[in-house]
Amino acid sequence: MNFVSDNAWGAAPEMLESLAAANSDAAPSYGDDAWTERLTVELSRIFGRPVAAFPVISGTAANALALATIAPPHGAILCHECAHLVTDECGAPEFFTHGARLATLPGRDGKLEPDLIEATLARFACGSVHSSQPAAVSITEATECGTCYRPEEIAAIASVAQRHGLRLHMDGARFANAVAFLGCRPAEVTWKVGVDVLSFGGTKNGALAAEAVIFFNPPDARDFEYRRKRSGHLLSKMRFVSGQLICSLEEDRWLRWAGRANAGARALAEGLQGITGVEIAYPVEANAVFARLPDEKIRRLRAAGAGFFDWAASSSGRTLVRLVTSFATPEAEIERFLETVRA
Amino acid sequence: MNFVSDNAWGAAPEMLESLAAANSDAAPSYGDDAWTERLTVELSRIFGRPVAAFPVISGTAANALALATIAPPHGAILCHECAHLVTDECGAPEFFTHGARLATLPGRDGKLEPDLIEATLARFACGSVHSSQPAAVSITEATECGTCYRPEEIAAIASVAQRHGLRLHMDGARFANAVAFLGCRPAEVTWKVGVDVLSFGGTKNGALAAEAVIFFNPPDARDFEYRRKRSGHLLSKMRFVSGQLICSLEEDRWLRWAGRANAGARALAEGLQGITGVEIAYPVEANAVFARLPDEKIRRLRAAGAGFFDWAASSSGRTLVRLVTSFATPEAEIERFLETVRA
Amino acid sequence: MNFVSDNAWGAAPEMLESLAAANSDAAPSYGDDAWTERLTVELSRIFGRPVAAFPVISGTAANALALATIAPPHGAILCHECAHLVTDECGAPEFFTHGARLATLPGRDGKLEPDLIEATLARFACGSVHSSQPAAVSITEATECGTCYRPEEIAAIASVAQRHGLRLHMDGARFANAVAFLGCRPAEVTWKVGVDVLSFGGTKNGALAAEAVIFFNPPDARDFEYRRKRSGHLLSKMRFVSGQLICSLEEDRWLRWAGRANAGARALAEGLQGITGVEIAYPVEANAVFARLPDEKIRRLRAAGAGFFDWAASSSGRTLVRLVTSFATPEAEIERFLETVRA
Amino acid sequence: MNFVSDNAWGAAPEMLESLAAANSDAAPSYGDDAWTERLTVELSRIFGRPVAAFPVISGTAANALALATIAPPHGAILCHECAHLVTDECGAPEFFTHGARLATLPGRDGKLEPDLIEATLARFACGSVHSSQPAAVSITEATECGTCYRPEEIAAIASVAQRHGLRLHMDGARFANAVAFLGCRPAEVTWKVGVDVLSFGGTKNGALAAEAVIFFNPPDARDFEYRRKRSGHLLSKMRFVSGQLICSLEEDRWLRWAGRANAGARALAEGLQGITGVEIAYPVEANAVFARLPDEKIRRLRAAGAGFFDWAASSSGRTLVRLVTSFATPEAEIERFLETVRA
Repeated sequence: MNFVSDNAWGAAPEMLESLAAANSDAAPSYGDDAWTERLTVELSRIFGRPVAAFPVISGTAANALALATIAPPHGAILCHECAHLVTDECGAPEFFTHGARLATLPGRDGKLEPDLIEATLARFACGSVHSSQPAAVSITEATECGTCYRPEEIAAIASVAQRHGLRLHMDGARFANAVAFLGCRPAEVTWKVGVDVLSFGGTKNGALAAEAVIFFNPPDARDFEYRRKRSGHLLSKMRFVSGQLICSLEEDRWLRWAGRANAGARALAEGLQGITGVEIAYPVEANAVFARLPDEKIRRLRAAGAGFFDWAASSSGRTLVRLVTSFATPEAEIERFLETVRA
Repeated sequence: MNFVSDNAWGAAPEMLESLAAANSDAAPSYGDDAWTERLTVELSRIFGRPVAAFPVISGTAANALALATIAPPHGAILCHECAHLVTDECGAPEFFTHGARLATLPGRDGKLEPDLIEATLARFACGSVHSSQPAAVSITEATECGTCYRPEEIAAIASVAQRHGLRLHMDGARFANAVAFLGCRPAEVTWKVGVDVLSFGGTKNGALAAEAVIFFNPPDARDFEYRRKRSGHLLSKMRFVSGQLICSLEEDRWLRWAGRANAGARALAEGLQGITGVEIAYPVEANAVFARLPDEKIRRLRAAGAGFFDWAASSSGRTLVRLVTSFATPEAEIERFLETVRA
Repeated sequence: MNFVSDNAWGAAPEMLESLAAANSDAAPSYGDDAWTERLTVELSRIFGRPVAAFPVISGTAANALALATIAPPHGAILCHECAHLVTDECGAPEFFTHGARLATLPGRDGKLEPDLIEATLARFACGSVHSSQPAAVSITEATECGTCYRPEEIAAIASVAQRHGLRLHMDGARFANAVAFLGCRPAEVTWKVGVDVLSFGGTKNGALAAEAVIFFNPPDARDFEYRRKRSGHLLSKMRFVSGQLICSLEEDRWLRWAGRANAGARALAEGLQGITGVEIAYPVEANAVFARLPDEKIRRLRAAGAGFFDWAASSSGRTLVRLVTSFATPEAEIERFLETVRA
Repeated sequence: MNFVSDNAWGAAPEMLESLAAANSDAAPSYGDDAWTERLTVELSRIFGRPVAAFPVISGTAANALALATIAPPHGAILCHECAHLVTDECGAPEFFTHGARLATLPGRDGKLEPDLIEATLARFACGSVHSSQPAAVSITEATECGTCYRPEEIAAIASVAQRHGLRLHMDGARFANAVAFLGCRPAEVTWKVGVDVLSFGGTKNGALAAEAVIFFNPPDARDFEYRRKRSGHLLSKMRFVSGQLICSLEEDRWLRWAGRANAGARALAEGLQGITGVEIAYPVEANAVFARLPDEKIRRLRAAGAGFFDWAASSSGRTLVRLVTSFATPEAEIERFLETVRA
């Protein structure tokens, strides 16, 4: 019963097959191969415009490289206080940007709010050499709370960003889950509503290790490739990373896998909802459920071998936990989890 | 006829099988899995002492992370002027070390020489705040010229390093090729002769993307793990990287594959040696041949579809080229290459 | 009527004389001179223990160099959300530390509070590679709100810091003002209550440009000198910086000048207190008055040529302003300012 | 008898007077003062075109800030192997540029040579992501060997730089000595022959601590001011730095002082030339003499209290020493030095 993270669930079998397919014969190294070229074609097709796309092997690298490309060392990057780049990357954004600052904001359900962005920007002395200069906004889609920004929410944030000359980055480690939930086209939650650069996640959705940094306006990529090489993220056998991403895009696997993960979360949430003493904390939209459970139920779950994160310390006899489902989470485990809670 | 690089030749089939084997069920993320634990056990066994080992996905990352752990920002790192970290990593060592300096030295056959190290160190004002402070020496085994340091050569360099308080790093992107050539135990060219930290290469030897940074004195690893995370090199599904390395170590595959690559280079060299106008530039020990070929033969080879690097511009009607063989280079291609040169 | 900052008021005449005194003959460069040596002796005497002291020319440099010496790149530094290093140094701490993170806390009257420090530390995953690691606490004495930590307040903060293995830095840009207000010995608000390293300010208190970074435990200074040189802050004619600091310490000038500045603020505050519609925002202890003034009085002051900072935007017809006095602020200007407000 | 460095000789009395003059009344901080404004006017006048000029307090800061403004982190900066920025700044260029690389070249009399620059550039893989990208050339005028580039020599270097898209930086720590020697207009060795940015030195020529970074094409200054602030080099009482530079420019003091320093070196060289066993190593043009002296004469000089640098270890009974004269070196000391050598 592993609900710790979607990255706990290995790779989809199709992924391993795709590696074998990419393994024929010798090929140019360092991304000059046919798979990487095709990846750009595929992503351009899916997003409905020519993009510049660069495969990397971790979400932390994707986010940090993207931000370093759009924010100078004296820049500030506005993001949610729960953003992965704030809480889980050990300062990677600061490392890659050479010391830009993360300005963190609260926000309901893990989402940034245009008004709070405006208020935060007002606290910076824009144009003054004494202050870090706001350079970018980063949002996460789906959010770290398992919710999804609607296109109009993103557009409203982008509007503030543009008015202040900031670029808009989207951490899409679970972009597939968001698109699957929203049922929209990828363009509708990205460039059409003002997103400049996207960390397109594959690893949490069936890949072994594959993400892509996508610039919707290719000239923005500027010195990205030097940064990637310089940080050790240009793989010699890049075809194996590109191949994974192509595999996930083919036959809409990325959306089917994400849909399955979302369905698991929905099943968990529906099952939990009826149980006395259990409370769902955030709307369950992508593939995570945040729920407050009585501590004795937590103990019972742990005893039964269930794995999940305590999201906050116990309070008034209940603990807020995070339950993440993946493309591979067995329905039987969800059922067993719910039975254990109900018992 | 691809002799461009050993990294052009995809992955060994056993590698892909090993990924499938590592793909069973859910597992802890970020290196807390059983494969990564076992990797340390395997490497400790092979090196004959307990080591601290950290898998990463590129040689550039391995080298730069290793050096950043042993050299401060105000440090200097002595290395050969042909070292991969000087010529091919776009300043990754400077990025990861936060600005340490590479001090480059010439040296016969791609090898550092103790006397020149001493002479270089004498030019630094050690202990003076005005000068970068020598902190480490980095050697490459096998070298970028396809040669191999003998244990006693390494010991002599280590002796200079230790006398001056420097740590010794070994870039072992082709460590397997060196060990296969020397026929020695891995310990005999590393910690037993004074190597402190090794970039143990897997990618050029049959893996998809797998290297390990190995500290022979585990406390030296200090803040390595923070640096790895911070640079985006801690994979969530690390088991797939560790699994590749374990696969290569099992049944001595790493040495067999490297041996096959070395044999290919030897066959090439032997074939070339007899041909008029052709000259072998460096002793052929690992899996590369550096040869001066008449320019008309170069043209013929290119026309026949042969791929390889010009190592220097044409001079007096001949060009120095690099020919690299791998675990997978077909003997028939070597034969065809030689025939084309002979024609 | 310049109440913009204490750094608007040039240098004390004694300072210029001290420069002339330090100007006799040739002297060793880069801090190997007799003045710099004597500075360490003087500071050790004043603080009642042997200290390691390093002159620099700006408070930003002093703070950033001090923090870089005690916090690693993956570290986090806890400080007040109004701290100069957060709001006014354009990311200098991030630059010098190579990307450490500032974790900002609220706190009454510009002071950090032990409970909030504990709560903030609880949010970091200490020892986990995914999170920046808390490494230091920085407090400002006197604070950016013109208040002064009492020795026992500092001790309580130091106690939390020590319990969590953090170092305690004090930004003492206005340290003299605090000591003059508290009437204590310098040791009583620094090392005796747990301060590890102090940015000892001279510039805001009569110097042209002179600060000292003081390590109370000299071995802590470790690689400080390399960092200072590397950042261009090791002056060749260091005697002129050291000479300024010596001048300020001689005959207790630093405390007399600071006392005069404090008295100016007190006079301002006393004068303002009785005026209808005027409200003092923070206890006036050092050399700054924060007051809410009716906007029409603000306009009158500006029209009369008064200079000062709006600390916040106008709200309900009043604006919070900051009024800073210095060693050189003429009493007549204070009087004229008050008259203008009263008018 | 101090010939160690021109920075050993304190400040010119006029400098101290200028500080007193700049000390009247309150003034805007952080460079928004009238002196700093006037400095730009003065420098624009002297260079015969509108320049962007930024005062700082050390040559290391001036050089490193200038280079960081024109070279990206993945850039390479070509300079002479004896350049101050290579040998004496503890990696400041790497720190400020966030890890750009210094590519060092030999060159007669401390000067870069166009052919060697071309040859060095040919070794970089321009446009390839694997290689640091040449971004700037830095030359020193007067050189570290006491020689002066002629305008046409600079133009030839600039021509190579421009052809390859590189910017040209001049380290002018002793720019005054060069202009005084050459008898040309400042423009003729700077922007008129292709220099983009100049570190204009004051400290070695009578100032306490004052340099200016001068961009001849003001838009090039881009983010310079953020970099200066962020590195702690924006002084609050900047008027005292600007005041020093203005003082040196007034009445052509900078050229008169430099001329006096040059004359001292010439006198030393002329005196040494006739002495048996003594050999002048480089043309004596600016204010330094490099001479090989018999070791027994060295010992006698040291015994007599003479201070100077050994530039190289003793060889064949002679040692190459550097003798630097300044605006303040007493003629009597030069005479006494020569007498001691002759004795």
